[in-house]
Amino acid sequence: MKFKEEVLSTRTIFDGKVVHLTEEEVKLPNGKKASREIIHHQGAVGIIAITPDNKLVLIRQWRAPLGQVTLEIPAGKIEQDEQDDPLLTAKRELNEETRFEADQFELLTKFYTSPGFADEMMYLYHAVGLKEVKKELPQDDDEFLELVELSAAEVQEAINNGEICDAKTLMAIMFWQMME
Amino acid sequence: MKFKEEVLSTRTIFDGKVVHLTEEEVKLPNGKKASREIIHHQGAVGIIAITPDNKLVLIRQWRAPLGQVTLEIPAGKIEQDEQDDPLLTAKRELNEETRFEADQFELLTKFYTSPGFADEMMYLYHAVGLKEVKKELPQDDDEFLELVELSAAEVQEAINNGEICDAKTLMAIMFWQMME
Repeated sequence: MKFKEEVLSTRTIFDGKVVHLTEEEVKLPNGKKASREIIHHQGAVGIIAITPDNKLVLIRQWRAPLGQVTLEIPAGKIEQDEQDDPLLTAKRELNEETRFEADQFELLTKFYTSPGFADEMMYLYHAVGLKEVKKELPQDDDEFLELVELSAAEVQEAINNGEICDAKTLMAIMFWQMME
Repeated sequence: MKFKEEVLSTRTIFDGKVVHLTEEEVKLPNGKKASREIIHHQGAVGIIAITPDNKLVLIRQWRAPLGQVTLEIPAGKIEQDEQDDPLLTAKRELNEETRFEADQFELLTKFYTSPGFADEMMYLYHAVGLKEVKKELPQDDDEFLELVELSAAEVQEAINNGEICDAKTLMAIMFWQMME
């Protein structure tokens, strides 16, 4: 294939809790060598959850990389034992973060968040038939989250003031608008 | 503010061409300490360019982090001297990657691609009034790109077969559908 780069060697630079960083030496299609910095990530899910009174369920939290508070749809990393089935992550995170469960989860789309330097795949689910959970899963003591339910107009306001500011949440809102 | 984490110290782990990785020690709202792995990125732009015969301009290229060829909208990193004005990046990348220019660039949205671990901001522009460039900017010898123009039906096929698979391109396609 005319575009393909051949990996000559891989060096691990950092093996963290969230981020695994490697540097690859590759051979380009023209025979020259180049290096590629790659973030390996176990993937994540985001969940569109709409309440019976037609509000979007969002989570308010501090985001260290941005140094600000954001409003995002419920989301979380795919754990090791969920790698074959991100739907398990969707169910778990919806319970942990919102105390809702759903009759059905519909996969709306999946996408790489930043294909230039990371392999993180995001799965976007629609939680259909939202209701309060019967059995609450344990929450992480060190996560500080606030559950928020916003109408379409309030969502627009939160986009305008910059509190809603990430790819998966903006895409979720576009899907929500198309569902209406 | 009840969510805010206080940064106690920052350690640089890797300072690369694309990725700058730090580890922060932070104090949580409950007084406990935690560490945060943060990818610092200079930001990027993506450009929605529609040809006069209503096709979407896409770039086919190898993506090392994914180990596959993708079709993405024209895009690129914001360079050091463009930090105050990502519109400059949009104009430059559109010229370099597609040999098109535009009468006008409209900022459709901007978003953090992966706020859990990275500060990368993506600016999504619509290039209005597309036409061939008069003056071609130099191209990078080591970039292997193929320019592709796809109809709406062909775009859907490329989503289905996984060649279109990243956040900014899928969002661009949703904006395109809403423009129609």
